[in-house]
Amino acid sequence: MMMVVGGIDAGGTATKCLLLDGAGNTLFAHQGQPANYQVGPDEAAKAIKATLAAAMAGAGIDRVELLGVGLAGAGRKPELERMKACLGTLEGVNRYALTDDGEIAVLGAHRGQPGVVLIAGTGSIAYGLRQDGTMIRNGGWGAILGDEGSGYWIGLKAVQAVIRAEEGRGQQTVLSTAVCRGLGIDSLTALPALVYNSSLGRKEIAALVPTVVQTAADGDLVAAAIIDAAVHELALLVEMVQKLMDFPRAKVAVSGGLFANPLFMAAFTERLAEASGSTPVKPSHPPVVGAVIYGARQSGWPLPFLELKQ
Amino acid sequence: MMMVVGGIDAGGTATKCLLLDGAGNTLFAHQGQPANYQVGPDEAAKAIKATLAAAMAGAGIDRVELLGVGLAGAGRKPELERMKACLGTLEGVNRYALTDDGEIAVLGAHRGQPGVVLIAGTGSIAYGLRQDGTMIRNGGWGAILGDEGSGYWIGLKAVQAVIRAEEGRGQQTVLSTAVCRGLGIDSLTALPALVYNSSLGRKEIAALVPTVVQTAADGDLVAAAIIDAAVHELALLVEMVQKLMDFPRAKVAVSGGLFANPLFMAAFTERLAEASGSTPVKPSHPPVVGAVIYGARQSGWPLPFLELKQ
Repeated sequence: MMMVVGGIDAGGTATKCLLLDGAGNTLFAHQGQPANYQVGPDEAAKAIKATLAAAMAGAGIDRVELLGVGLAGAGRKPELERMKACLGTLEGVNRYALTDDGEIAVLGAHRGQPGVVLIAGTGSIAYGLRQDGTMIRNGGWGAILGDEGSGYWIGLKAVQAVIRAEEGRGQQTVLSTAVCRGLGIDSLTALPALVYNSSLGRKEIAALVPTVVQTAADGDLVAAAIIDAAVHELALLVEMVQKLMDFPRAKVAVSGGLFANPLFMAAFTERLAEASGSTPVKPSHPPVVGAVIYGARQSGWPLPFLELKQ
Repeated sequence: MMMVVGGIDAGGTATKCLLLDGAGNTLFAHQGQPANYQVGPDEAAKAIKATLAAAMAGAGIDRVELLGVGLAGAGRKPELERMKACLGTLEGVNRYALTDDGEIAVLGAHRGQPGVVLIAGTGSIAYGLRQDGTMIRNGGWGAILGDEGSGYWIGLKAVQAVIRAEEGRGQQTVLSTAVCRGLGIDSLTALPALVYNSSLGRKEIAALVPTVVQTAADGDLVAAAIIDAAVHELALLVEMVQKLMDFPRAKVAVSGGLFANPLFMAAFTERLAEASGSTPVKPSHPPVVGAVIYGARQSGWPLPFLELKQ
């Protein structure tokens, strides 16, 4: 009988499931409904079970030897405990292990080796996996309390700078035209109604990033100051994690929408080199592979193939 | 038959109605349900009508010659037009006129004379009434887009500074203990759940202001920097309005919870003197009196008594 191992990356956008055979070959990959802890552990458990069942059906199997599950928003022990209670036993799964999305991200990014991952999309957070197996995190306090340097943070700073320029409290900036065009409004007076009734949400504000980056590159001082501040904040997250690492050669992988922008990636690369002498790399594997590694490790399974295959 | 004039200050906390006789004597004052435009113009109209009816019953009258109404959150023309449509005719009122809360605040604060009002509580905004009758406003973009220097802004900066100190990204500060005690939490890890499920709202965060002010006064550099930044932002709002005034001797009145704190008031007074050479004064009359003045002016009624009585 073929041995099957699996991983689940349960996130706010989708729940991804990957099933591999014992040699590391993909049997089936499936993407199901989102399953963030914040939306409720019962809903999350339902989405995880449905995604797993669909993947197993797709692969034509009825048994998984071991499964690793990483869940967004379940970073602390009480949340993991509650989530385990909601998940209960998983039908057809011999052994499974649950952790948060940070751990599977860092395990995937560095193929199980100690390392650092900086994730910067709408939000921002850095994780480190130490050689002794413990995790470190810095940042990621959400849109109100933190997420400094994130896409939402950059977009909001741009909108605020435009308002301040308009009202005479801030420097004039080319962002004024660019931001209004980007948000599809004729005048800033339309802004409060849009923002406070949530029809202009975090994603739409984060979508201003390419505009801000380009305006900065074109020489606008206000936009340049925002991008400088953002890369400073992101490099600081990495530095704080690096301080607590026990593996000096740990690599820094970067992931998330911000780094898809070449100008932003270049600015961050320069800042990180100044701050810590590191060079950012792309993750070796996605978090769902990290989930497989996590499940394997928790079960004492070596999974050597994952350290060999690139 | 006795002539009665009235004013309504319809705000997010309560709707206040004041009825005066033609000589300026108070007949009845009544406080009813809140009536912010943002909660819906129909609800606001209902609260305004109920408050007026209760005040008229209390005064034992069935007719008001003229009524001024100031409504929170109705600062722009389309909102005022929509609100007028919802209000329709007011039973027992011969003439009424509607404006926003800023105009009645400044009319009350300076007894109808040109002047500036800075309001800083949970939010922050400055208004100016020019001699030519036009209004100027600066700030007041709400908790996400603006409200710089407000109570919420100060409280949030304090919470963010505590998180950054905890994570090694910011300077150590005495605020760490003070803020946790102020919010009634043992550990910062409890914070995201409280903030993002809204059980810890803007008011609770703004309630940290006395703690931050006292910590600053006790010599904590992080707290002092937050208070310095706040008084700078508030003075900037005043300066921007003063720039556009056509009445050089216009006084600056300050109102709102922040100025009830003597240490904060002292810091702001010093900053405003440096910034614009002005000395802040307390409002001469509350906004509901400004509403009476507004109603009278719109009806061509001189109301000389309000300019005589202190």
